[in-house]
Amino acid sequence: MIVTKDSEIRVWETLRRRQLIDATPWLRLWSETVRLPDGRVIGDYYTLEQPDFVVVFALTDENEVIGIWHYKHGPRRVNLGLPAGYLEPSEDSLAAAQRELLEETGYQADSWQLLGRFTVDGNRGGGQAHIYLARQLRAMAEPNPDDLEEIKLDLITLTELQQHLENGSVATLGAATAIAFGLNVVAQSTLEGKL
Amino acid sequence: MIVTKDSEIRVWETLRRRQLIDATPWLRLWSETVRLPDGRVIGDYYTLEQPDFVVVFALTDENEVIGIWHYKHGPRRVNLGLPAGYLEPSEDSLAAAQRELLEETGYQADSWQLLGRFTVDGNRGGGQAHIYLARQLRAMAEPNPDDLEEIKLDLITLTELQQHLENGSVATLGAATAIAFGLNVVAQSTLEGKL
Repeated sequence: MIVTKDSEIRVWETLRRRQLIDATPWLRLWSETVRLPDGRVIGDYYTLEQPDFVVVFALTDENEVIGIWHYKHGPRRVNLGLPAGYLEPSEDSLAAAQRELLEETGYQADSWQLLGRFTVDGNRGGGQAHIYLARQLRAMAEPNPDDLEEIKLDLITLTELQQHLENGSVATLGAATAIAFGLNVVAQSTLEGKL
Repeated sequence: MIVTKDSEIRVWETLRRRQLIDATPWLRLWSETVRLPDGRVIGDYYTLEQPDFVVVFALTDENEVIGIWHYKHGPRRVNLGLPAGYLEPSEDSLAAAQRELLEETGYQADSWQLLGRFTVDGNRGGGQAHIYLARQLRAMAEPNPDDLEEIKLDLITLTELQQHLENGSVATLGAATAIAFGLNVVAQSTLEGKL
């Protein structure tokens, strides 16, 4: 239904919800009964609860980005990502971003900027992706990543990163978003003569 | 584990999988038993199957983008998205993008470019988001959107769109990705003197 400019878009109401699967801490699946603004009631509207995560676009003083090659079981292939990971319970997103950058790459950053936070699935929910730009990097330690993953670090120029984004090397939506946001910030800075 | 530049990153092997929930066509939840490259076996690795979807960055000849204000139950608020929707069974992504643009906005486009396709959840899977740039738009019909949603169409300048992306009006990862990709294409074209 098209709403005219003068009227407001109305929200849905959740009348009840039933937990179908509790796989805490990774996910919980719910079936909700929702009432639409026009009064219709929809049963079995599926929603997901998942932990929030961070993705870090870490830009060196030489305008290189810290990329991570890894196998991810979602896309089921080796692909190019960025430092990223779930928030720990009660951890805030900035602290998680700083922790993941240090764990996965060994770098700390003096400049942090939140570029946005977005719900992963517009219909089902899931967690939020918190996208950070990190600058003024210093190599502080040996990387010590999540023990499930084999990773390969790669310092990537902005031109190469744009090519990876276009050629399919980047496989996941979270990494793609953070890369596009990071390239945008750089492009805007270039257009404004700041770089 | 850090892999040196000379060695290859190895993939995981799914030994078996068990369906936990079949909520076709919206989602199926699986529990997989996976073997990591180092030989460890992980039980209960959760994966999701969901339909692919398209998101369309539709740019008019006046450099305005067709935005859609709508309530989405994932983020549970009214927010700014783009024309988008699930692929129908056996539909290809370009056909879906063209159908969704026409249904939701009434526009057809003579120029279509795939900007990328990305798996929604790097760990769990889910569907792929197919991001399209549509140009050379023509208003062809009255909008006739999905009957669950109230929507409000909005022609948005690139400057305003950048502000919406930064101020929280955009709530979902798919829309944020498509907007960032679209703004990137425009910025690159501007830097190269094409606009």
